[in-house]
Formats: sequence, C-alpha cells, structure tokens
Amino acid sequence: MTPIRRLTLVAFDADDTLWHNERFFRLTQSRFAELLADFAPPDHLNDRLLAAERRNLGRYGFGVKGFTLSMIETAIEVTEDRVPARVIRELIAAGRDMLDHPIELLPQARETLEAVAADFPVLLVTKGDLLDQERKLAQSGLGGLFAGIEIVSDKTPETYATIFSRHGHRPEAAMMVGNSLRSDVLPVLGIGGWAVHVPHELTWALEQGEAPAGHPRFRRLGSLGELPPLLAPAPGGG
Amino acid sequence: MTPIRRLTLVAFDADDTLWHNERFFRLTQSRFAELLADFAPPDHLNDRLLAAERRNLGRYGFGVKGFTLSMIETAIEVTEDRVPARVIRELIAAGRDMLDHPIELLPQARETLEAVAADFPVLLVTKGDLLDQERKLAQSGLGGLFAGIEIVSDKTPETYATIFSRHGHRPEAAMMVGNSLRSDVLPVLGIGGWAVHVPHELTWALEQGEAPAGHPRFRRLGSLGELPPLLAPAPGGG
Repeated sequence: MTPIRRLTLVAFDADDTLWHNERFFRLTQSRFAELLADFAPPDHLNDRLLAAERRNLGRYGFGVKGFTLSMIETAIEVTEDRVPARVIRELIAAGRDMLDHPIELLPQARETLEAVAADFPVLLVTKGDLLDQERKLAQSGLGGLFAGIEIVSDKTPETYATIFSRHGHRPEAAMMVGNSLRSDVLPVLGIGGWAVHVPHELTWALEQGEAPAGHPRFRRLGSLGELPPLLAPAPGGG
Repeated sequence: MTPIRRLTLVAFDADDTLWHNERFFRLTQSRFAELLADFAPPDHLNDRLLAAERRNLGRYGFGVKGFTLSMIETAIEVTEDRVPARVIRELIAAGRDMLDHPIELLPQARETLEAVAADFPVLLVTKGDLLDQERKLAQSGLGGLFAGIEIVSDKTPETYATIFSRHGHRPEAAMMVGNSLRSDVLPVLGIGGWAVHVPHELTWALEQGEAPAGHPRFRRLGSLGELPPLLAPAPGGG
C-alpha cells in the first residue's frame, strides 16, 4: 500500500486493538450460560443477554458494570423470578473478576505504538467505565506513549470531531486505528478523517458494521505491525 | 469577607453543588430498606450497604451502576442467599430510576455560574459514571457556561493538578467550589489552590471530612449566591 501523507495525528482504540478484552466477556458469558443451564439453552440465553445489553446501553453505557447488571436482569427474566440468589452472587463475582483480569497486550501493540509515537502525537480513544479503562491503561504500561487519553461514553462522529479539534488537528490530517468498524472506522470516515481497521478474532455483536471497501481514506490491516510502514509524517512534522 | 484576588480559574463540582443528587440516593436507600424489611432493620441495612460501597469503590468507582451492584450484593449477604429474585428485580429498577431522574438545579446555581463565567473561565469537575454525568449536564442546560468539562474517576490532589495544568493555570490561581470537604476542598488546598465549601444538607458518609477552619485559602459559604462577591478577577484578566 502507498504510504499515507499529510497526517498530523494518529489515534488508537484500546480494547481488542492494543489488549485483549472481548475474550473476558465471552468467558463470563459461558459462565453465565453454565449457571443458568437448568433454565434455558445457551443460545437462547445469549440472545436474551444481548437484547438486555442493547436495551440498557442508553442508560448504562459501555463497560463491565452495565454488563453485570444486564446479566443479572437477564437471569431474573429467563427464570421468571426463580433464579436462586446464589446464582446472582456468582454473576456479581464474575463481573468483579472481569474488573480484576490482568492486561494482556496484543502482539506488536507496544512496538507499533512506539514506532508511531516516534513520528506523530498519539492519542488513546476508548469507551467503557472510566475507572476500569484507567486501570487497564495503567496496567498496560503504555500510558507514557500517549500525548492524550480520551475515555468517552460513546464513539460518534461528534466525539471524534471534538477530540481532534481540542488537540489542534483537522480531521483530514487525523487517523483512527481500531478493531471496531462501528466505533473506530465509520464515524471517523464520516467526518473526513482516515481510518484503519485491524480486525480482532472476537468482536461483540453490537460493534459490528459493514467495511467501507474501496473508500479512499480506509485501510484494512491483517495486524498492527503493518501500520508503521503505512504512515509518512507530514512535511515539516515529526 | 475580603475578595480573593489573582484568581484565573474557577472550577465547580456538580452533584449537590449545582444540582440535587444525594437525595436520590437516599430515596433509593429507603426503598432498599423497605424491600428487605423482613430480613433486617433499616440501620443495619444501611451500615451493610455502606460497607459494601466502601469495599467496592476501588473496582466500581463512584456512580449509580456501582451503587446498584452494591445494593444487590448487600441484599444477598444480609438474607444469606434467601432474597427473592423479585426483590433484586426491584433493586435494578430502582437503580434505573436513578439514571432517569430529572435534574433539579440548586437555588442560585445558574445565576452564580453566569456571574462567575462573565469574569473567569469556569470548569466543571465531577466524578461518577461517565454517561450519567453527561446526561445530567445536558439536562441541566448549564453546559454552555463551562470552558471545560472534566469527568474523573476520583478527585485526588493529582487529579486537580493535572486538570489545572492542562487548562494552563497554576494551582495558586485556581479555585474549586463544592459541597464535599473530602473531594472538593482538601485535595485542592493540598496542591496550593483555593477551595470554597458550600455545604449541602445531605452529604454521603464517604464524602465527609474535617473542615480546615482558619486555612488562609479556604472559605465556607452558606449558599452559592455568596460566591461572586468573593471573587475579584486578576488584574488584566476577565
């Protein structure tokens, strides 16, 4: 691919772009299905849980606390109020485990960030529970590589427009890198920015979207390590 | 009181400084005690709930979602796993109601903010769930008065030092106004800033602290309306 020129800013998503995240949700969901196996088959449970998450998104936002509340709500619903309290206790413990899980960086995350940060100011743009995202960033050891950390409640075109502008960059000169078409790619293309999709093997149903194949400011990479050669600093920059 | 000179920035807390908040927690706590009345007396329930909130703070942080999870956990604990699922369902609904409650501004909140914002850049510094704090701010109609909105996971001396510096102000020229001695007053005095305490009739046990009576950069006001006469813009500013 021809290098992209005239960029002045590169922003990264965190969960499932720099470190594993979705796998902990999947593990917890399996535990959820196990705990409720007497009441409903796993597929049905997953569907009901996803419906609850979708319904609650406007109130709870993204993150583990809302997910835990949605699991509890679904357990009560599918059992028609018959779920034993000890199952709810286990669901709360499962949510707590998610908030404690150690950070595992994805392959090439550190090297890629270091290479990009040598030439560009680099931002982290992530959504989820404030405290949990801060904890993960601190544990990742990557904090020092970022010129700015933006923990946001949702990733809309306006979110990106505000962030890019606050850091003094035009969208046309900014790039977002992430695993979610819905959150990292489409809103950034929508405001005139560049977007790089690095798919992760696991992607939450609510993060899926259609790849804008052929879009001039869109790139899709097989892995993070392919990013640095794609970027040419703006003349006079870096 | 003599006006304070040389200030370049005034920051406000939100919950129970600009709008009511604690009263919704108290209402929900009464509902919680009512729902569990068959299992334990109200005082005991409140103590156990507070203990759970304190224990969970490091994982959940501040806000309604963590509070809801702590209520559920306490309900399971005090009933030794005998709490019926319909009670948990009611607790989830009570938490959801808190996330929907309409914003009620405190007396003189708007007038005070407008008067201060005419002379100083004004920040909002608040902690809690990101999405919920954003919703409350949007509903308050006060958003346009702030030069910056800072939703943080905790209010430590470092939090304030980072925020003041990012906005280009020295702590010695910055003032924080709020109802919590622990979160709004003490950490700001600790980094050399000014702090104004405007007590609210209801203050959560975990927000209490000792008033630093006689501290040269501390003021205590009976109401928000007393703030503007206390502030004299820096020479050349405003």
